[in-house]
Amino acid sequence: MKKFVYADNAATTPLSETAFEAMKPWLTEYYGNPSSLYRIGRAAKEALNEARATVGKCLNAAMPVNEANDYAPGEIIFTAGGSQADNLAIRGFMHGPGAKGRKHIVTSKIEHHAVLYTCEALEKEGFRVTYLDVDKQGRVDLEQLKRELSEDTALVTIMAANNEIGTIQPIREIAELAHAAGAKFHTDAVQAVGHMHIDVQEMGIDMLSLSAHKFRGPRGVGVLYVKKGVALEPLVYGGGQERGLVSGTENTAGCIGLAAAMKEAVEGLDEKMGYVKKLTDRLVEGVMKIPYTHYTGDPVNRLPGTASFVFEAIEGEGLILRLDLAGVCGSTGSACSTGSLDPSHVLMAIGLPHEIAHGSLRLTLGEQNTEEDVDYIIETVTQVVGTLRAMSPVWEDGRPNLTAASNLHG
Amino acid sequence: MKKFVYADNAATTPLSETAFEAMKPWLTEYYGNPSSLYRIGRAAKEALNEARATVGKCLNAAMPVNEANDYAPGEIIFTAGGSQADNLAIRGFMHGPGAKGRKHIVTSKIEHHAVLYTCEALEKEGFRVTYLDVDKQGRVDLEQLKRELSEDTALVTIMAANNEIGTIQPIREIAELAHAAGAKFHTDAVQAVGHMHIDVQEMGIDMLSLSAHKFRGPRGVGVLYVKKGVALEPLVYGGGQERGLVSGTENTAGCIGLAAAMKEAVEGLDEKMGYVKKLTDRLVEGVMKIPYTHYTGDPVNRLPGTASFVFEAIEGEGLILRLDLAGVCGSTGSACSTGSLDPSHVLMAIGLPHEIAHGSLRLTLGEQNTEEDVDYIIETVTQVVGTLRAMSPVWEDGRPNLTAASNLHG
Repeated sequence: MKKFVYADNAATTPLSETAFEAMKPWLTEYYGNPSSLYRIGRAAKEALNEARATVGKCLNAAMPVNEANDYAPGEIIFTAGGSQADNLAIRGFMHGPGAKGRKHIVTSKIEHHAVLYTCEALEKEGFRVTYLDVDKQGRVDLEQLKRELSEDTALVTIMAANNEIGTIQPIREIAELAHAAGAKFHTDAVQAVGHMHIDVQEMGIDMLSLSAHKFRGPRGVGVLYVKKGVALEPLVYGGGQERGLVSGTENTAGCIGLAAAMKEAVEGLDEKMGYVKKLTDRLVEGVMKIPYTHYTGDPVNRLPGTASFVFEAIEGEGLILRLDLAGVCGSTGSACSTGSLDPSHVLMAIGLPHEIAHGSLRLTLGEQNTEEDVDYIIETVTQVVGTLRAMSPVWEDGRPNLTAASNLHG
Repeated sequence: MKKFVYADNAATTPLSETAFEAMKPWLTEYYGNPSSLYRIGRAAKEALNEARATVGKCLNAAMPVNEANDYAPGEIIFTAGGSQADNLAIRGFMHGPGAKGRKHIVTSKIEHHAVLYTCEALEKEGFRVTYLDVDKQGRVDLEQLKRELSEDTALVTIMAANNEIGTIQPIREIAELAHAAGAKFHTDAVQAVGHMHIDVQEMGIDMLSLSAHKFRGPRGVGVLYVKKGVALEPLVYGGGQERGLVSGTENTAGCIGLAAAMKEAVEGLDEKMGYVKKLTDRLVEGVMKIPYTHYTGDPVNRLPGTASFVFEAIEGEGLILRLDLAGVCGSTGSACSTGSLDPSHVLMAIGLPHEIAHGSLRLTLGEQNTEEDVDYIIETVTQVVGTLRAMSPVWEDGRPNLTAASNLHG
């Protein structure tokens, strides 16, 4: 059989067997609408709230509200995914009473577009947004954050870990600074949850977005954690589901699948991440032997499964397509696939020159991957990069011709 | 085995075997992200677009754009459900360039809350909304519509069929009037699709909302049909999926399940609806033999599976719970379950007195139901209504005491 190695777990993950088995009865047998009064409706509502409690426990979402260790279910809002959670958090908070008339948001230059474009839409409505710089490893500048915070700052929204380069931000410190300025703190933890420890209380998080399909749950379902007392305007008006913030008949099976996958991911986190980190280190070591290759992101504060590189004199899209032919799935920060000629905003923000940022490769490993996979990836990437460089107009005599590259990408 | 009859198909429907089988491989084997460049990503994108084409064909969404009978895929926007589709249509249009600065919306008093509350939110932003009256059968008043339309009217949004009483609106006539005034026409067809013939071109529909779980598709996925040329502001900002209107990684399995269920429902529509209508007629005949019972909704222009009643001197919630004990699932328009003492806005709009509207029962049949089911429902409802009346403080000497009822609900 032809070799196939999926190394794009930051894009999406295969649904876990546990999650699928948990969902199945709710897709087939138990079809009651959770808003219905009769038994099969009430059973769905109970299962949904159990899923909510599971998510709450995984995030350490609230002090137990009673001796039975129940959690405040109102803090877990199911959404249709991470982007919806980000939109609800940022737009919902800025339009709501919790902003107290303050008009300023602080975010960073390397956020996901669900955050960046929501902020841009708010700018058009008259809100003011500061986009913080990041250093070469992709960490936000805390001194700049301090300088930018003011009495007009309502919200600080900084991702827990970056989707392209895996850099983990100093969340607790950022939350403290936000709170000292009287602002609330939201984090897009879509890439982080299930891949690093998250404790919303210990980290001082007021709102947190997560998405099931990033930790082997189903597609089309996410959560916004909203700390008790943080008021939001709805994203979707209607029947009043999800505390009225995201109306619509609940996707029971999806929510239950999310909770099952999250429990599985969080319970086995240390062991899994130890294993994945070892694989990733092996991968980085092997790929970095290719000449004119740069490692991107923070070598210490990074997601355990994320390895990201740029290769000089390489086009990311061509690289992905050739790797695919050899059975390796990876991704590139180059935005060629969307018709844009601009390289990734993240790679630009960490200071990569335009002509180099085009040659990016992100490989993200999961617990399904093996050492054998990693060795095959290293071998394949080495070979493909060699082939592409041999054909490249900006590769001469075994090295990149930077002048030619610069002219090409101008 | 204990008898169990599900007669609440307007609340949600059991997932069809065909839809589940269509979804399964996309939940397990084919997990690629449709935005990814490699094969398993491209396969997901192709399947997603095939699902889009299927939906388009079922709605007769556009003239074939070429000889291969392909449809304009940009007209089918996947959402996380009917409520999201309604919100996107109404808010997205009024905030977008298509409204051309016009500030007036016309809707009806019996719309779903996803429409009504979206309109109310827009009123707070300065838009003006007219809520049309309906007659005793629940049909909107076309003369009133004509009078209310003006050069300031941007959008008319009227549901295709009502969720509580099943009344079908004169969609084509409404669309014509809207267009004559230079306005666009949106219809919430969440209850209609899969239960009556819909042809967006023939009916003059500019935007149409639908939800998969109302026609035996999965929960958590819907569609907004948007006619080519109708411009909207996004509901969810982010990665640009769904033409940038609803960003977020696509729920491939859900979209494919929606398309499979829709194809199945629409292809077998005449036969299925003939069968279901016969069952419903039998049900109505049987239930109407109970004294002091009123049929609600339009006896002619109605969804084939919807039977709705009010029983004098009965509380809807108690009725549902007792029916449930006997294994019959139905619903009541009474809003007691949400803690409100107000009866349904729909039943009030068709002119039912407050004290009678509390005793409503909606029974909605599907193709899974049998004559035996119907006879069991009739027997059970007759018995339960009798028992509840015998215990009721507003039932005296075999008839309702309306003065007492009026005092009770005042």
